[in-house]
Amino acid sequence: MMQKKPEILDSRILPPEEIRVRIEELHLRFGNGAERHYRRMKTKTQSVVLIVPMLDDDTVLLIREYAAGLHNYQLQLPKGAVDPGEEILSAANRELKEEVGKGANKLQHINSFTALPGFNTQITEVVLAQDLYDEKLEGDEPEEIEVIPWSLNNLTELVEREDCTEGRSIAALYYVKDLLMKQKV
Amino acid sequence: MMQKKPEILDSRILPPEEIRVRIEELHLRFGNGAERHYRRMKTKTQSVVLIVPMLDDDTVLLIREYAAGLHNYQLQLPKGAVDPGEEILSAANRELKEEVGKGANKLQHINSFTALPGFNTQITEVVLAQDLYDEKLEGDEPEEIEVIPWSLNNLTELVEREDCTEGRSIAALYYVKDLLMKQKV
Repeated sequence: MMQKKPEILDSRILPPEEIRVRIEELHLRFGNGAERHYRRMKTKTQSVVLIVPMLDDDTVLLIREYAAGLHNYQLQLPKGAVDPGEEILSAANRELKEEVGKGANKLQHINSFTALPGFNTQITEVVLAQDLYDEKLEGDEPEEIEVIPWSLNNLTELVEREDCTEGRSIAALYYVKDLLMKQKV
Repeated sequence: MMQKKPEILDSRILPPEEIRVRIEELHLRFGNGAERHYRRMKTKTQSVVLIVPMLDDDTVLLIREYAAGLHNYQLQLPKGAVDPGEEILSAANRELKEEVGKGANKLQHINSFTALPGFNTQITEVVLAQDLYDEKLEGDEPEEIEVIPWSLNNLTELVEREDCTEGRSIAALYYVKDLLMKQKV
């Protein structure tokens, strides 16, 4: 199954009053006395989980999901916002159930990554999920998400695909492969 | 030398009329008929270069630069916008001279990554830079950028540091290590 791209029925640049993105301006003085104004995006959610679900010690479960920024489908790791008051590992297990249809008996918070750290205030918490079981939770996805098992032995091939580009996902896959090779997890 | 964080003299959330970020709303119809509105950020620059400058086959040159989103210093690979009409490899060499004080006799475009592809329309072109020479170009940085040589043999240690989090940089470092081990570059 290869999803066809969604059709763009309409597109428009939003007028300022409809933009909900919050931009903060910082007036900074650097150690050498230089002053600058920097802008950054304050998102509602400060914390995101990125899950590396291992079916076994070599097979990771990827998802193929529509990415509006690129207007194409991307092979990525499942991820999602941590709800207010929610624990990182609970959020990871919930997203895993929603996006992959699996839960995990073993969840470990193994690292923290960022995307656009010059502009974006969010932190991405990387969670390794092992010892998986079947459990589907309904998410808010517009369509069924395709789940694709991939061997960490073929990571180079994956990273060279045109539809696998997301930095944090690629970083997390290499890092987990690294940890598994060193038997650190 | 460890830079002290810049001091925040003032900060404010911008009123809508001062926000220069362009947000586009797409009205989409998915293959199954489901309709959704998605928002994405249209940046002026559609193309960014991320440079992996190798001093030798094991030593990469990182930079330590202030990241306003996190309000701390981050160890990252040098990167910057591709100017209109500029070639990817020329942009990479220019940014390398500005941020690291090196030019490269050998430049190769080895991959394309993304950051926040669900929201961000930009593509990050990954350029491997080898056979380096000294040449400094003035950039628009508020302070001198610290350059830190790092051995690709100690990549796990780097990725586990609190100040090394940027997904595309980590992905590019692992990927280049991978290519060098396989003698593909």
